[in-house]
Amino acid sequence: MYIRPQQQPAGKHTERRYFIMKGNVIVGQSGGPTAAINSSLAGVYRTAKDRGANKVYGMLFGIQGLLQERYIDLSEYITNDLDTELLKRTPAAFLGSCRYKLPEIHENKDVYEKIFSILEKLDIEAFIYIGGNDSMDTIKKLSDYAIVTGYRTRFIGCPKTIDNDLALTDHTPGYGSAAKYIGTSVKEIIRDCFPLGPLHNPANLMGRNAGWLTGAAALAKGEDCLGPDLIYLPELPFDIEAFSEKVKDLLAKKPSVVVAVSEGIRLADGRYVCELGQSVDFVDAFGHKQLSGTANYLASYIAGEFGCKTRAIELSTLQRSASHCASRVDILEAYQVGGAAVKAADEGDSGKMVVLQRLSDDPYQCGTEVKDVHKIANDEKVVPREWV
Amino acid sequence: MYIRPQQQPAGKHTERRYFIMKGNVIVGQSGGPTAAINSSLAGVYRTAKDRGANKVYGMLFGIQGLLQERYIDLSEYITNDLDTELLKRTPAAFLGSCRYKLPEIHENKDVYEKIFSILEKLDIEAFIYIGGNDSMDTIKKLSDYAIVTGYRTRFIGCPKTIDNDLALTDHTPGYGSAAKYIGTSVKEIIRDCFPLGPLHNPANLMGRNAGWLTGAAALAKGEDCLGPDLIYLPELPFDIEAFSEKVKDLLAKKPSVVVAVSEGIRLADGRYVCELGQSVDFVDAFGHKQLSGTANYLASYIAGEFGCKTRAIELSTLQRSASHCASRVDILEAYQVGGAAVKAADEGDSGKMVVLQRLSDDPYQCGTEVKDVHKIANDEKVVPREWV
Repeated sequence: MYIRPQQQPAGKHTERRYFIMKGNVIVGQSGGPTAAINSSLAGVYRTAKDRGANKVYGMLFGIQGLLQERYIDLSEYITNDLDTELLKRTPAAFLGSCRYKLPEIHENKDVYEKIFSILEKLDIEAFIYIGGNDSMDTIKKLSDYAIVTGYRTRFIGCPKTIDNDLALTDHTPGYGSAAKYIGTSVKEIIRDCFPLGPLHNPANLMGRNAGWLTGAAALAKGEDCLGPDLIYLPELPFDIEAFSEKVKDLLAKKPSVVVAVSEGIRLADGRYVCELGQSVDFVDAFGHKQLSGTANYLASYIAGEFGCKTRAIELSTLQRSASHCASRVDILEAYQVGGAAVKAADEGDSGKMVVLQRLSDDPYQCGTEVKDVHKIANDEKVVPREWV
Repeated sequence: MYIRPQQQPAGKHTERRYFIMKGNVIVGQSGGPTAAINSSLAGVYRTAKDRGANKVYGMLFGIQGLLQERYIDLSEYITNDLDTELLKRTPAAFLGSCRYKLPEIHENKDVYEKIFSILEKLDIEAFIYIGGNDSMDTIKKLSDYAIVTGYRTRFIGCPKTIDNDLALTDHTPGYGSAAKYIGTSVKEIIRDCFPLGPLHNPANLMGRNAGWLTGAAALAKGEDCLGPDLIYLPELPFDIEAFSEKVKDLLAKKPSVVVAVSEGIRLADGRYVCELGQSVDFVDAFGHKQLSGTANYLASYIAGEFGCKTRAIELSTLQRSASHCASRVDILEAYQVGGAAVKAADEGDSGKMVVLQRLSDDPYQCGTEVKDVHKIANDEKVVPREWV
């Protein structure tokens, strides 16, 4: 049973050890960073310590680093409550990250033996992995292997991705901050377009990776802003002629047109729109292939069609790294799911991912739950058709 | 003499009319917008009203709009102190902007007669133009024409540009906010690069328009960040082989390399680096020319040389529109130069630009002065060689 620690004076650092957890905890980060990923790390550390874990290790560069026995003792880095607070607000993966897919268990048992020998040596009771779809695949495989072979370590996934494409969770920590940044930037871009008025007709096109992020461009809409004129999500096939017609109509009516497009939009025949720009295999003067994105391609397409000035703006990595514009709720929820992951492992769960569950829309309230990672890994949550 | 209005209760809107100014004021905005350009507009409006101007007109889309007699009465839009405060914090040109160069006086007198007939009709005592180098050229020509022909309207320029390239002023309103945004974003990009550690070697390259802005990338440096590894300003010729060598050395030493480049860097022979990527005149499948920037070109160059993953990030219009990250000092100074412009016109100056004068570095203090616009227009302040 978990004994709630007594209230401590604010600001005072406290190692709340109740010696409930029997072993140590290890935590890793994986995939692309977000503005909130370190808040989950802070939540894991704090809750593990609160629940009496002796050591909380951080694997460096995810499971790939762990295979090379690269890890740190987090208590050497987080020495007081201010460190925890700063970590919560620091963007990008503090522990370093990786993109590494574990082999299937039957394909290569050696990798698993190596990992579990390290976990045994470190006396790991709970293994927490903060990441997206691929990271949940890692949790699934490791927990399956532990169950089959009788290892006692429990494996819990902690959701993280700006793409918001994880199944079963209401939303994903990291998405809120990215959406806030996108909504803010798109609103500023729309305002920036206006003043050039009748002289320019810029069509700004933004590249994104997933429908949820591009949809966040709609957040620009409010009483002080009409929002982007057109939004294209990857969930529906993209018709370049229909797009061109719509832009033509808009240009006749308004001085500037702003379009938000997902990097992942495709034509009806399945080809990515960004492939069209690269189909010529352009090689520059030095023999290097020049890549161009969806927004670049469409901006030059519209410029060519209508002879107007266009500009492609790619929000690029700024979406995931802009902690100066992070969402407070996002940082808080990321911290909570980190804590809930340790709690779940401590209470006996394994092969699960913490999810956010919407308790109420007004006032907004979310709680945490755990769900079977087999139902999440490698599945992608797209924007529902009826919302498009 | 200007009589200081009595202190008013906070929050209460007051039309402080002392009937000092004899005529009306017109104000326009020109060139690319900034996060602080509307703060200068608010400063012009407030000070003109405080000094007793009857009407404060705003020309729509700058001098080009004025030629079409497009203007508004600002008091219909700014009805209370909250409106003023909101305007100060709103990015992009509220009045709309233009890029229009007046002809030389001897080339086309008709344009000038047209402008002055409109100014006469509107009983304009002070003409304030908020803009950069080209806008100061407009102020210079109009004030020259007024002096030669005996028109009584006074012309004062109000500096504005994110490029910080105006002569005689310590710095330019708009630059501070852009520099803050760049410093913040570069720091976040550097943090974002780290976690991928030994697996990736991204060389992030940022396109910029002027040396001062690119130099602002150095603001990322602090006790929590080493800053970008390399910064290239347009003030010095760019040697692509020396650059390649430096990146090679850095890649051998560190997991990720971040480079900030100005969009305007050139080779020793005068060609722009971004021209290299376009020299092939790439035409896409639809017959449109594909343009690519300096960062894109160098990123693909490095990827080709060293086979590492690279990413080009262009801060693009986000630099000038990111009011969510605006500098408080910048907003305040922009407001002050707006007010100082009206004061100068009211006190009899014409053909002048308001400049910011550094009074003290520690504590930071700037005051305003006016300088002859003939010494400013069409001149460009570059980053001093010894600072590079």
